[in-house]
Amino acid sequence: MKQQLSNYLNRYVSFSEDELDLFYSYLTPKTFKKKEYLLKEGESCKDKFFIIEGLVRIFKIDAKGNEKIAHFGIENWWMTNMESFILEQPSILYIQALEFTTVLTISKSKLEIAFENIPKLERLFRVITENMFVAIERKNELYMKFSSKERYHNLVDHIPNFAQRVPQYMIASYLDITPEYLSEIRKNK
Amino acid sequence: MKQQLSNYLNRYVSFSEDELDLFYSYLTPKTFKKKEYLLKEGESCKDKFFIIEGLVRIFKIDAKGNEKIAHFGIENWWMTNMESFILEQPSILYIQALEFTTVLTISKSKLEIAFENIPKLERLFRVITENMFVAIERKNELYMKFSSKERYHNLVDHIPNFAQRVPQYMIASYLDITPEYLSEIRKNK
Repeated sequence: MKQQLSNYLNRYVSFSEDELDLFYSYLTPKTFKKKEYLLKEGESCKDKFFIIEGLVRIFKIDAKGNEKIAHFGIENWWMTNMESFILEQPSILYIQALEFTTVLTISKSKLEIAFENIPKLERLFRVITENMFVAIERKNELYMKFSSKERYHNLVDHIPNFAQRVPQYMIASYLDITPEYLSEIRKNK
Repeated sequence: MKQQLSNYLNRYVSFSEDELDLFYSYLTPKTFKKKEYLLKEGESCKDKFFIIEGLVRIFKIDAKGNEKIAHFGIENWWMTNMESFILEQPSILYIQALEFTTVLTISKSKLEIAFENIPKLERLFRVITENMFVAIERKNELYMKFSSKERYHNLVDHIPNFAQRVPQYMIASYLDITPEYLSEIRKNK
């Protein structure tokens, strides 16, 4: 776990062994069974989750009771509800494990201490957040510009074995299309 | 200008006079006339712009030749095309002054030097980027959840004298409604 984290961190900023040890000491490993929730609507999101292995989805339930999936997260992604985490407000989103999932969690207060003691982390999270910002803008761009079929193939390209790991109805929910139309897309690839 | 910048910076992180002087030395003031472009499609976005005074819009021209406004920026906002700036790719967006606009610009290479010499800037930009991330997610949320009327009033509440400063057709473009429907919304407030 520690090795995976340090490989990940060193992609962005070069940390010393001491810095890595210290950061690792602020993190707590947790596991979630398939279908278990990392966060539920109405709870304040107090943690960031670094996914060691597994697959999660972030979604909300709209006024009509339908699930709307915002995105999926896999190995080496940080997941959180940024709005709830930063503003300390109740979440309108759920985060749920879709497979047995192992994460390293860090609370907001521990992360603040980590920033104080390991200033390089500011750079790491600055860069990660910039990348997330670009990703979300691209997602919106894709949404406006591309067909459901193109968006489906974009997903498949970015998440290994995606079609085997995520139930069809969730993929349809994410793409905002009917399951019937999704199965047409899959047939005509 | 320097005072305005330092008031802004100190809202997020407490900088010493020396740090402020040093950061200010990396910035270049520039002015743009009404309708002048800070960035055009196809150019690589090499700068971040801190708006001292004025009003700008970020927009693109879609396949049908229509302008699609992504957002507006006013005093004390950092504007850039994040994707083009980070990935050093040609921009698909335009940034244009809608009023006489004064900015402080910093290039990517100077910003990297500034990060090296003033580590607190990492924190500043980490926090700003997190806030931007939350803002864009909220905008998407608003877009999905609220009517054009509610989104119009949200704009009016956030940008002082908005309706006087921005031409009607641009507001309609931003809200993705017809100018006729916008004028109905404005009449029935």
